[in-house]
Amino acid sequence: MFKRRELMLRGAALGLLPLHARAQALAATRRVGRLVAIGGAEDRLQDRVILRRYVELCGGPRARIRVLSAASGDPRGVWLAYQQVFAELGVSDSAHLDIIDPTHANSAEVVDQILDADGIFISGGDQRRLMDLVWETEAFRALHTAFHLRGCCVGGTSAGAAVLSRHMLAQGAAPRLPEKEAAELDLGLGFVSKAIIDQHFSERGRLGRLLSVLAQRPDMLGVGIDEDTALVIERGLSVEVVGQGAVTLVDGRQLRSNFDDIDSHERLEMLNVRVHLLPAGRRYSASSGDYSFRRMPPSLRDAVSLLVAPGPIRG
Amino acid sequence: MFKRRELMLRGAALGLLPLHARAQALAATRRVGRLVAIGGAEDRLQDRVILRRYVELCGGPRARIRVLSAASGDPRGVWLAYQQVFAELGVSDSAHLDIIDPTHANSAEVVDQILDADGIFISGGDQRRLMDLVWETEAFRALHTAFHLRGCCVGGTSAGAAVLSRHMLAQGAAPRLPEKEAAELDLGLGFVSKAIIDQHFSERGRLGRLLSVLAQRPDMLGVGIDEDTALVIERGLSVEVVGQGAVTLVDGRQLRSNFDDIDSHERLEMLNVRVHLLPAGRRYSASSGDYSFRRMPPSLRDAVSLLVAPGPIRG
Repeated sequence: MFKRRELMLRGAALGLLPLHARAQALAATRRVGRLVAIGGAEDRLQDRVILRRYVELCGGPRARIRVLSAASGDPRGVWLAYQQVFAELGVSDSAHLDIIDPTHANSAEVVDQILDADGIFISGGDQRRLMDLVWETEAFRALHTAFHLRGCCVGGTSAGAAVLSRHMLAQGAAPRLPEKEAAELDLGLGFVSKAIIDQHFSERGRLGRLLSVLAQRPDMLGVGIDEDTALVIERGLSVEVVGQGAVTLVDGRQLRSNFDDIDSHERLEMLNVRVHLLPAGRRYSASSGDYSFRRMPPSLRDAVSLLVAPGPIRG
Repeated sequence: MFKRRELMLRGAALGLLPLHARAQALAATRRVGRLVAIGGAEDRLQDRVILRRYVELCGGPRARIRVLSAASGDPRGVWLAYQQVFAELGVSDSAHLDIIDPTHANSAEVVDQILDADGIFISGGDQRRLMDLVWETEAFRALHTAFHLRGCCVGGTSAGAAVLSRHMLAQGAAPRLPEKEAAELDLGLGFVSKAIIDQHFSERGRLGRLLSVLAQRPDMLGVGIDEDTALVIERGLSVEVVGQGAVTLVDGRQLRSNFDDIDSHERLEMLNVRVHLLPAGRRYSASSGDYSFRRMPPSLRDAVSLLVAPGPIRG
């Protein structure tokens, strides 16, 4: 807590406004935190349904959008591509959140960019490359401050989606059938605390991989997001599927597996897994007053509650 | 019933023994019916774990095994291939159950071959080609008589596995995500009455297709069998997975889908599907006295009961 307060003070000190005015400004713009987890390969040329929606959730064309492309091996190239797309979508204030190394991730410049953003967009690449840069840095804390306290809309595609969860699927083999420890888990940004997100899901046949990690962490919900498809999570409110494909929720919380009885990379037995296949165009509310809630089976209500639950502020 | 009795009489009249002796012989050899549903591409050259097991379930090297290759476009070639494999496995009495057309399927020759068999092995190909030949023929009735009354072991690979169920998945597109009416259902041989069998399951990513048909028939259990993998069903007793891969049981009986609200080939929403992934080497008993039964979650017990339930004698 102390560190975050320090961070706020520092962020405020660096701003143009005095502290109390800045705090007021933060409070005035406080919105419900939203996440846009995209399964990769989102349309950037045609209708751009997902990116258009992302811009809208950031606040529209006047939103300040910062592109975090550090997961990519070509951060500048990726930034330029998104700069063009966001410009074409009418965004006048987009900028590259160009984090060079962990020292830079601790800099006031980076922190300020994050705290000022209405939207942070995290590109694809390798989720570990991004985490190696920001883990336990001021930038990491600023991202949480921005999301939790300012309602900044955090979007991520492919690796940028995987990184949104606390327990992050690091790249690993994707066996057709689940195997013990087929893929490694690592720590991600942690905006979603009780789910593990995988991407390119049905296109790359990753159910086996997601089941593999759920055998290891049966307390988590598995979220498989297809390409050109996004799961929009409105904290405390609802989840919605946008785009072309579907989101597969894999709930292993009542699972029985032989994880403890077998060796690494042996084939898993997995009994009693619950699956919900949510196609694009559907919204699932976590509020009992909502029509969509009433038509949901209890097991899905429960899964949605887990997804929209506000995780802790990290940092 | 009359027709089947007639069939029995005819089969008996054609046999070497008088009717009462034949009936006695049938009763003496009556065993629990077993099905060996193979997901295609079973090993025929190396360890041949599945075919070896099939021979064992037929009664060993002295078993009379009849190969029904009518699903194939090259029935003779397929028969010759299996003849060699069965010979290599020590079977001295294997023969080609060569059904040429529906008239032939009504012949005493074919009926007698079936009623005399300890094992019927159904090859791959197109399940509809086989059903077009045998539907409502004496051969169809004889297959049921052999399985239900004589305990003949019926094995089938690929199309030959699909055809074992009453509600048979006819060839159809295998979309990554389930779509309304993506694949057609037709009537199969019906040894399994409450399940739909699909094959080449994880290799060809057929979960979407199986889910598609379950949306249409949520009262059925979906059974996805991998290549070089078999589900051995001992009627009333247990199921066992043999070979290299796994069997995926997809239970949609508590499913909620939008099947009634959408048009053909539209994307399905499927909520609350239960999945059990059963790896090779596992046996699941339907008997409460068995250890494997006690460690099974209730949902799996229920699914296994459905699989081992004796379906009606058809014909």
